[in-house]
Amino acid sequence: MAKTAVRGTFLDFVDDPYKHVGNEEAAARFQADGLLVVEDGVIVDFGAYDDIASTHSGVEITEIRDRIILPGFIDGHIHLPQTRVLGAYGEQLLPWLQKWVFPEEHKYSEREYAEEGTKHFFDNLLASGTTTAQTFTTGNLTCNEVFFEEASRRNMRMIAGLTGIDRHVPDYFANTPEQFYDDSRTLIEKWHGKGRNLYAITPRFGFGASNELLAACQKLKEEFPDLWINTHISENPAEVHGVLALHDDCHDYLGVYEKFGLVGPKFTGGHGVWLSNSEFRRFSEAGASVAFCPSSNLYLGSGLFRLGRALDPEHRVLVSYGTDMGGGNRFSLLNSLEDGYKVGMLNNTILDGSILPSEQDLAESERNKLSPLRAFYSITKGGAEALYIDDLVGSFDIGKEADFVALDWTAGPPATAWHQSLSYSDGPLTLETVSDLLFGVMMVGDERAVDQTWIAGELAYQKA
Amino acid sequence: MAKTAVRGTFLDFVDDPYKHVGNEEAAARFQADGLLVVEDGVIVDFGAYDDIASTHSGVEITEIRDRIILPGFIDGHIHLPQTRVLGAYGEQLLPWLQKWVFPEEHKYSEREYAEEGTKHFFDNLLASGTTTAQTFTTGNLTCNEVFFEEASRRNMRMIAGLTGIDRHVPDYFANTPEQFYDDSRTLIEKWHGKGRNLYAITPRFGFGASNELLAACQKLKEEFPDLWINTHISENPAEVHGVLALHDDCHDYLGVYEKFGLVGPKFTGGHGVWLSNSEFRRFSEAGASVAFCPSSNLYLGSGLFRLGRALDPEHRVLVSYGTDMGGGNRFSLLNSLEDGYKVGMLNNTILDGSILPSEQDLAESERNKLSPLRAFYSITKGGAEALYIDDLVGSFDIGKEADFVALDWTAGPPATAWHQSLSYSDGPLTLETVSDLLFGVMMVGDERAVDQTWIAGELAYQKA
Repeated sequence: MAKTAVRGTFLDFVDDPYKHVGNEEAAARFQADGLLVVEDGVIVDFGAYDDIASTHSGVEITEIRDRIILPGFIDGHIHLPQTRVLGAYGEQLLPWLQKWVFPEEHKYSEREYAEEGTKHFFDNLLASGTTTAQTFTTGNLTCNEVFFEEASRRNMRMIAGLTGIDRHVPDYFANTPEQFYDDSRTLIEKWHGKGRNLYAITPRFGFGASNELLAACQKLKEEFPDLWINTHISENPAEVHGVLALHDDCHDYLGVYEKFGLVGPKFTGGHGVWLSNSEFRRFSEAGASVAFCPSSNLYLGSGLFRLGRALDPEHRVLVSYGTDMGGGNRFSLLNSLEDGYKVGMLNNTILDGSILPSEQDLAESERNKLSPLRAFYSITKGGAEALYIDDLVGSFDIGKEADFVALDWTAGPPATAWHQSLSYSDGPLTLETVSDLLFGVMMVGDERAVDQTWIAGELAYQKA
Repeated sequence: MAKTAVRGTFLDFVDDPYKHVGNEEAAARFQADGLLVVEDGVIVDFGAYDDIASTHSGVEITEIRDRIILPGFIDGHIHLPQTRVLGAYGEQLLPWLQKWVFPEEHKYSEREYAEEGTKHFFDNLLASGTTTAQTFTTGNLTCNEVFFEEASRRNMRMIAGLTGIDRHVPDYFANTPEQFYDDSRTLIEKWHGKGRNLYAITPRFGFGASNELLAACQKLKEEFPDLWINTHISENPAEVHGVLALHDDCHDYLGVYEKFGLVGPKFTGGHGVWLSNSEFRRFSEAGASVAFCPSSNLYLGSGLFRLGRALDPEHRVLVSYGTDMGGGNRFSLLNSLEDGYKVGMLNNTILDGSILPSEQDLAESERNKLSPLRAFYSITKGGAEALYIDDLVGSFDIGKEADFVALDWTAGPPATAWHQSLSYSDGPLTLETVSDLLFGVMMVGDERAVDQTWIAGELAYQKA
């Protein structure tokens, strides 16, 4: 495709704001009047309009006014086949799976239903500004074929894989380790690295996995070492007890995955609400990541992830954010940031020592505060780093894929516009102003702020 | 005004669903094809269309199709002058007040700004389906005059009063007890019982009140015994410690208000997150109520209100829901229900005994589950009962004021419609179906579900 360009106000990140406490702006890159030049879906230039426009005379420029343009949002943990049953009533994790989730996911064995659901899934992602998602599917081949077909058709950078389970599951929904291995291989050979698709070996969770299923995962990782691994860990106390009963040779939940050599770069454990200090250290040493899913953790009552603990520089754990739609009741990562902010603030009521003085930890407390720069880093560059795709997406560096979102900071519930006018009404935008507006987007607004979503340099979604 | 009528699908409550565990439907009243007849803003008839329509031949009927009509929502705790600063970053309660709130509230001393803010406030309430709110204003007379003028113009059933504070407050914003008493009296005599206005004696909170200010409140209550009393209690641990340092002759926070004879029917303490068992009992015995503000409690990290404990039939505490906008980051009570559901589920991770077996309490746990019928009772009849206005609003009984809301269950974020289709696509609605759809509205939808809001039998808001 010919070179094209977009002119507007851009914000992305060149570093991790958590490494610049008290001076977060140093981690951000802001172009009040910037130009992003794209060719064949890839960024070929980016900078201030006045600096670089002359180099690209003749290139068709789309002007995006009154918007903040960020890299597309990255969701580290989401469930394709729960699209219709998000927000199901009243159960904690384990009974919820049995009552609501497995019956719905099973419908994706039928191609027609899978196609309907998958279309809704991708439409909802784009309407939420999500351009990349590490996705759980089901253990059924048809469901996965439909997923990768649609991801390919939309040309989106997606990570997914056959989601296997063979314990604590109804027979109609269970895999065997052999079928899991065979069907995973089929999908890997057909889809991994084709177009923008990336494959993740996906044992649903330790509580649902026999030793044989996990051994099949280990075999696949040895045969295809550059694959991702996507699973759950330590989401809910009963689940943790249950997995240690099932794998009684392990001391803790992470040990179950370590036993099979699965923990390292490109490994994601979703939730991690009940991880111990030892497990956090081992995550960090292995270069593995946690997908923090606050909306789900609140919705299922799983608990409060120790975000500030995970981000301790002494053993920094890579963290992405996940909607965990449908344990999470919303598709939008903006709501995940809202709930992540709330989890952090709840953690701090303990960590400020006002209840138990012995619990005071002001440094950890500080890391629980989800400032807007921390927040939007976490769902762009931070998410990309956690998922080991930061060479491909997550910022406006030359050579990266041109996935981005244009946000209208006035859009959302009726209270949004007047609130935002406290920070800005007219004139040139500054980084400080944009930071304040983005906080308003995440706490007062919602996915209505997503005005446009672009995939590989092409407009893929325009809000009506 | 001439008689008018509305035909549609109606849901309201005849009893408290918490008193019908396992059979909540017994507390609800459902009309799949109902007729509500209104004259001079008051309900004069209500029932199945086929039963009563013939009695009202010649009356102009508005048909509301494809909607669920409920009584207007009741917000037990909200701050008019925080309309613009909702969602302010990063502080727990006490520093948040100093940094963000007092400076903004002070602007309402200027009539022009107060009028602008008050218009936004009421517009946002109506767009959220809220038809009655017990409202904090400021300690300034102008602000309160503007409030009651606008409430009168809109003919809404509102409770509010001069919001006094004289401790831990910047000088520019402080009342004196004498000025608080005098200006409160002025407002009471001018506005209480005029039109639909009701007055609440409003000492902002014990942490911000000298003995003299509280004594002024006591005097007002003795002089005007039918007034409401609206304040805060036990929201945040540091605040609790602080109030007991300020009022060191009291054992607990409720004791501060009891000392001045303020606790009884029509007394509301907002939040109550850190209330002791003894305080819950005394609330119950006094017939006083708590306004549960889950969005705010999460947003400011205040903690998790023990909803199931408050609703223990042995000492049932009256509970309303409050958005607490702007400590709460949203105007819509639907988001309060969403967050209330999450608080209940988080409570239950303790109460199921999976962490500490000694904490198991399955009965309390059951009361933490916010089913849709419990939820919508709580923001209609339940809220009215807690605020002692259930003779006036909160259900479709003959003689009550005709405030109601028409909800479109398909509206909200993009995922909403397909999710709701799991429960209903066509044909007659049933109570069971409507209950499921309402859960979708509160957990997957948002204030976009509010299609129309009617005040005293007249359409006051139509979604664009």
